[in-house]
Amino acid sequence: MNTSSASPQEIKELDQSDPLSAKRGEFLIPADIIYLNGNSLGPLTKNSQQRAQEVVQEQWGKDLIASWNTHAWIDLPFTAGEKIAKLIGAAQQQLVCCDSVSINLLKVLASALQMQPSRNLILSQEDNFPTDLYVAQGLETLLGAARCKVKTVAEPDLAQELDEDVAVLLLTQVNFRNGDKHDIERLTSMAKARGILVVWDLSHSVGVLPLQMDKWEVDFAVGCGYKYLNGGPGAPAFIYANKKHHEAIKQPIQGWMGHREPFTFDPDYKNAAGMAQFLTGTPPILSLAVMDSALDVFADITVTDISRKANALAELFLDLVKDDEDLHSLTLESKADSAFRGAQLAFSHPDAYGICRALNKASVVVDFRSPNIVRFGFSPLFLRFEDIWRATQIIKKIVKEKTYLADEFSLRLKVT
Amino acid sequence: MNTSSASPQEIKELDQSDPLSAKRGEFLIPADIIYLNGNSLGPLTKNSQQRAQEVVQEQWGKDLIASWNTHAWIDLPFTAGEKIAKLIGAAQQQLVCCDSVSINLLKVLASALQMQPSRNLILSQEDNFPTDLYVAQGLETLLGAARCKVKTVAEPDLAQELDEDVAVLLLTQVNFRNGDKHDIERLTSMAKARGILVVWDLSHSVGVLPLQMDKWEVDFAVGCGYKYLNGGPGAPAFIYANKKHHEAIKQPIQGWMGHREPFTFDPDYKNAAGMAQFLTGTPPILSLAVMDSALDVFADITVTDISRKANALAELFLDLVKDDEDLHSLTLESKADSAFRGAQLAFSHPDAYGICRALNKASVVVDFRSPNIVRFGFSPLFLRFEDIWRATQIIKKIVKEKTYLADEFSLRLKVT
Repeated sequence: MNTSSASPQEIKELDQSDPLSAKRGEFLIPADIIYLNGNSLGPLTKNSQQRAQEVVQEQWGKDLIASWNTHAWIDLPFTAGEKIAKLIGAAQQQLVCCDSVSINLLKVLASALQMQPSRNLILSQEDNFPTDLYVAQGLETLLGAARCKVKTVAEPDLAQELDEDVAVLLLTQVNFRNGDKHDIERLTSMAKARGILVVWDLSHSVGVLPLQMDKWEVDFAVGCGYKYLNGGPGAPAFIYANKKHHEAIKQPIQGWMGHREPFTFDPDYKNAAGMAQFLTGTPPILSLAVMDSALDVFADITVTDISRKANALAELFLDLVKDDEDLHSLTLESKADSAFRGAQLAFSHPDAYGICRALNKASVVVDFRSPNIVRFGFSPLFLRFEDIWRATQIIKKIVKEKTYLADEFSLRLKVT
Repeated sequence: MNTSSASPQEIKELDQSDPLSAKRGEFLIPADIIYLNGNSLGPLTKNSQQRAQEVVQEQWGKDLIASWNTHAWIDLPFTAGEKIAKLIGAAQQQLVCCDSVSINLLKVLASALQMQPSRNLILSQEDNFPTDLYVAQGLETLLGAARCKVKTVAEPDLAQELDEDVAVLLLTQVNFRNGDKHDIERLTSMAKARGILVVWDLSHSVGVLPLQMDKWEVDFAVGCGYKYLNGGPGAPAFIYANKKHHEAIKQPIQGWMGHREPFTFDPDYKNAAGMAQFLTGTPPILSLAVMDSALDVFADITVTDISRKANALAELFLDLVKDDEDLHSLTLESKADSAFRGAQLAFSHPDAYGICRALNKASVVVDFRSPNIVRFGFSPLFLRFEDIWRATQIIKKIVKEKTYLADEFSLRLKVT
């Protein structure tokens, strides 16, 4: 695709030939907003709006406790999980949707460590998503360094650190800041050769990048429901555990939903077979039902098409800004080759925060990441090529005229 | 109150003089249902219905990511927590609302054990709520018996087992099956005298029983949002941690929301002061906002009035069934003296399951608890004395005519 001098007409043609163009109609996005922040919080779908009303007014409101059966609330962790399976290249019965990424990571790390009695090291990357490191550090505090020791290294050193001391390799596929993308297949294969179990955090990948958990023989994965999956703010997260481990796992964060016979009120915990044992307490049904409904937007499309469009959107963006002299103060911090990055672009700029504020005020919703990054997310289900063109026009105007908004720095803005 | 031969007219007068009678108008309960199951899943309030719509359509739908600030999503764990504080006799800044009871119990038990380096025993009761035991058993698996050993004894033996080996006493105030109520003040005081930390599960108490966490010097408590608090199915739970422990606690289930500076993306975890460190991952905002809104029904009433009415409802129920010959096959399994039970009554009967099914079909919604218990819950905010009268008439008819519904036994029905 050559769009180096893309005219409005050419951009219109890109939208017209987009196989995903009808998907935008399934979302409820305010008409004046260009939302380049679906990688932080995916927008509301019509389907989810309807499901939220239904679960509150019809199910909880009218059928009350009976809804656990009649509306299959009890099955929701699996119903939603199976819809995610298709997106990450996993056969059925290897996913559940529950709790948060942090809690799920704790379950998975604790399980993986139990499977490696003679090793104690969790290896990760210095600039891994911080909360993933916090979970691992907390496990070290809880279990003591003799059983769990967290080691982080710079990204280029990861491969050489994969030795026989390492119990678990914990990585996030796409870097939250610059979008750098790991080669899951390669690192998983290297880890496997050294007897290391891998745990991948797919939070910034799922729903937008092609993933093959089963084929790549990934051991465990976790991921976020509220970014590219559009499951709603703080939507329940998910866990993937490869079937080959199901017999060996004994997940230690125990609650009644993970019991083999949850309704017998047995005083002794007996873990359920398969993924059910990763459940703990009662799930937040309103949030979980909405999460489940959001996944239906993926029912009739392929991740290949999604990923292809995400790249095309980002490439158009790069193309439209690259030759503009006024934008030379913006430095691309993401990989120029789309094969090595996720569905986002990061630019550094001394006035990044002011630029973000000005863009948001002009209805181009983007993220600031400390200390000097403007982050653009390319969610392909609702963004049009036309949106990218409009967004770049607004960016050019703001940067050219230096109409940055350096109002009081608000730490709160930067929720990931 | 003498209602031993309560006539319909006298029951009408009870409703007319009820200081909480207006509260029913704040709920959306189908007109034909007598809902004696608020202790399993509290019903929907008008306020929550409106809030659900607002948080989905207006906040998420229109303001998207900015809602974390503009609609104070980020504060919700504390906003909701402080509303619960009043209900459990706690000064401010000692509660957060988050995750599930099971996850919260894990956080609190792990914290308490860390504060007791020379003791390893978690003492509990054989018929404690099973999921509480599962969490403790899971912690034993995780930490090893040298650091965490769970011991359960029969209720009458609890006091004598409170010795210097015990690190933590873990109890649920109200027994889920028969409603037996512990004296929190007495047991907490005995435990304290032996250097034992107490963790109370208030799931079947909060919102209906008078509680004085601060005055009784309770160390930690957890509780459920979806029973008497009416927060919605699987609503986020809460944690109470006594202020005197805040300096000493280092909660090991770590996530970004518990970091001192959650928005700086620090790779090293530094726990926040106070209750914030009990937060882990991103909370399910839809469920949490609805939970928060449900608590507003308590804003203008006192727990004393709530508790008094709960007792009066149960006493009326007992009074209306006690002299009926047809009902002699129902054996009261709860304490006859309301001072020693929660806001529920349990009766055993050989055909308990069939009776429950028949009652539910006749729109008197009650719970079955294995193996032979019919459980009636008395949520005082929406139940009228008239409802109790109508319910007992229906029970009498079903038991007299033995029109039990012994259809296929459905394990799924018995969600607590």
